[in-house]
Amino acid sequence: MKARMKHASIWKTCVGAISGMIDEAAFKVLPEGMKMRAMDPSHICLVDFELRKEAFDEFLVNEPVTLGINLLGMDKILSRARTDDEFALELDAEKNRLVLTFKGASTRSFSMPLIDVGESELPEPKLRHTASADIVAGIIQDGLKDAELIGDLLTVKLSKEGLFMRAEGDRGSSELELRVGNPSLPRLDVEQEARASFNVGYLAKTVKAAGPIDIVTVNLGTNLPITLNYSLADAKGRLIFTLAPRIEAE
Amino acid sequence: MKARMKHASIWKTCVGAISGMIDEAAFKVLPEGMKMRAMDPSHICLVDFELRKEAFDEFLVNEPVTLGINLLGMDKILSRARTDDEFALELDAEKNRLVLTFKGASTRSFSMPLIDVGESELPEPKLRHTASADIVAGIIQDGLKDAELIGDLLTVKLSKEGLFMRAEGDRGSSELELRVGNPSLPRLDVEQEARASFNVGYLAKTVKAAGPIDIVTVNLGTNLPITLNYSLADAKGRLIFTLAPRIEAE
Amino acid sequence: MKARMKHASIWKTCVGAISGMIDEAAFKVLPEGMKMRAMDPSHICLVDFELRKEAFDEFLVNEPVTLGINLLGMDKILSRARTDDEFALELDAEKNRLVLTFKGASTRSFSMPLIDVGESELPEPKLRHTASADIVAGIIQDGLKDAELIGDLLTVKLSKEGLFMRAEGDRGSSELELRVGNPSLPRLDVEQEARASFNVGYLAKTVKAAGPIDIVTVNLGTNLPITLNYSLADAKGRLIFTLAPRIEAE
Repeated sequence: MKARMKHASIWKTCVGAISGMIDEAAFKVLPEGMKMRAMDPSHICLVDFELRKEAFDEFLVNEPVTLGINLLGMDKILSRARTDDEFALELDAEKNRLVLTFKGASTRSFSMPLIDVGESELPEPKLRHTASADIVAGIIQDGLKDAELIGDLLTVKLSKEGLFMRAEGDRGSSELELRVGNPSLPRLDVEQEARASFNVGYLAKTVKAAGPIDIVTVNLGTNLPITLNYSLADAKGRLIFTLAPRIEAE
Repeated sequence: MKARMKHASIWKTCVGAISGMIDEAAFKVLPEGMKMRAMDPSHICLVDFELRKEAFDEFLVNEPVTLGINLLGMDKILSRARTDDEFALELDAEKNRLVLTFKGASTRSFSMPLIDVGESELPEPKLRHTASADIVAGIIQDGLKDAELIGDLLTVKLSKEGLFMRAEGDRGSSELELRVGNPSLPRLDVEQEARASFNVGYLAKTVKAAGPIDIVTVNLGTNLPITLNYSLADAKGRLIFTLAPRIEAE
Repeated sequence: MKARMKHASIWKTCVGAISGMIDEAAFKVLPEGMKMRAMDPSHICLVDFELRKEAFDEFLVNEPVTLGINLLGMDKILSRARTDDEFALELDAEKNRLVLTFKGASTRSFSMPLIDVGESELPEPKLRHTASADIVAGIIQDGLKDAELIGDLLTVKLSKEGLFMRAEGDRGSSELELRVGNPSLPRLDVEQEARASFNVGYLAKTVKAAGPIDIVTVNLGTNLPITLNYSLADAKGRLIFTLAPRIEAE
């Protein structure tokens, strides 16, 4: 198995975001691309990742293979990539290692041992979301940082008026409003107003994947898990976080 | 009570500087503007703050009110403001809360509980300073950082030759000279040479308010408290620190 | 003794690099310039420093003198220099102090006590290196940071093909290749392929002296100490680190 990209940045961003939630995971390498679906250890967040072979400049797979990857270790290695380095990922089946190569001013490579990761087939969750919006990621990141000053619970609401985020704590409260017509809210579809509360820390990890001007697709249903969906590499892949709600104290 | 400014920066700078010295304070909101005068907990520094209504774009006060503010909490909230955010401060009298609103890409607001702060009428100190100078703040900041390497006591002198700062310790000594004619010393009035020593840490807090190219007006008298006076918002306000001297070991 | 430079930067860089290895050292001030040769406390690295009088704008020495300098203290003082400050170093023989003066927006000076440093005449080591190269410092710095993720031992090889660095550990391995013809390897002379292993932390200290695009001259012999040679101030001085090899586990 060998995969090559002009720039390490997509892979680096994905591994950075996923490794914030999950320490290790089984990546399936199939002729059509790479896939990974896993729950975080506390079973609060499901991570669903797919990057199709079209996202790579070279993608050679003789037979499907599952790679057990220590994501924290890989994230550290990827931190050594320069933005303009060419990037390759190659399986050394004999040594049971994965080789990451960065080509820039010099050629640097890292080999990391593959690990055994218990694989379980997780079905795609079916959720009856009643509201959906495309939102500039920086807005959500702002609302989360505001909420971190206040407490660890954030209530998210999508109504026909727009997006509303609210945190309440002993030290006061924070609120964010992003109303219809604001360019940072390019799409809003509300079948029925939806509202649910989430852990601020977990929610913050799900937006770590995004640059501040990236668009996130958010789906919400009252007291249902929220999904945050990132399109990767010009829609040649996706990264979806599904985060369980917390019961809101009334 | 409602006050509004095009940019949060003046308010943010003032609260940042004051909160380094004082954790909580009673701000008087009067039809002509806002005022605050308080001693730091160790009674070494008096802080005198005034921002007239002309510094605001909107300033509505029906009746004078005193707001007990947790300055550390407010400073944290203001750290969430972006430089180009429009800023509003509003009293929610019913809930006894103060609401801070930042309008930028989205509209974000924080409400913080008001607190009880013992109010005491502190008179403006009368000091027979014999020397006065306008000094570029960065020069004083440099002299303080130099002194921090040496010890915790800094001697400041204003003479007809200029400004002199000196620290002496076991590890050596530091000296700063800013002589008459230097553009960083645009004004120097010396009736009689003045010299006093101050705690480096406290003095550093009093120049936290200033950007490096801001002008500070310094008044000095031998073994008297020093005053550092900042003009705010094009002279529509002022922030004065009066810092007690320390006895210099001879 | 008095020495003056237009900019403090050369002196600052040298003291920064040497003080990472050695806490205190005896600098000889001779009519022709300044010299220092010392071993680090663990006797793993020899530091050889020379800055000829031509590197200074003014260099006055009445009689040779040896200055015992606390390099960590001097490094802290030099951290207060601005890049465009004029810099002077002067001996206050009466007080047994060294005075460092920075002239910029103001004139600031520090005096630091001289210390007693045991002087021992260390001969220049004679090493039969069989390979030598000029290498862009950033390449070595990259290879060292890569290796730090892996372990504390780095093997360096110079062959007719180029420079090779390799670290191996429980968490995997890292490799760097810089092949002949690469502009980051402007010179390579290999009489016989050479290979030796070094402690990553010590090696990292020896390249702290360099900016990322500076050229380092590296001399290597199999299982011999490595030398890293920096030309200072347009070849008016030099800083050479000679670092003992570590026995490589086979």
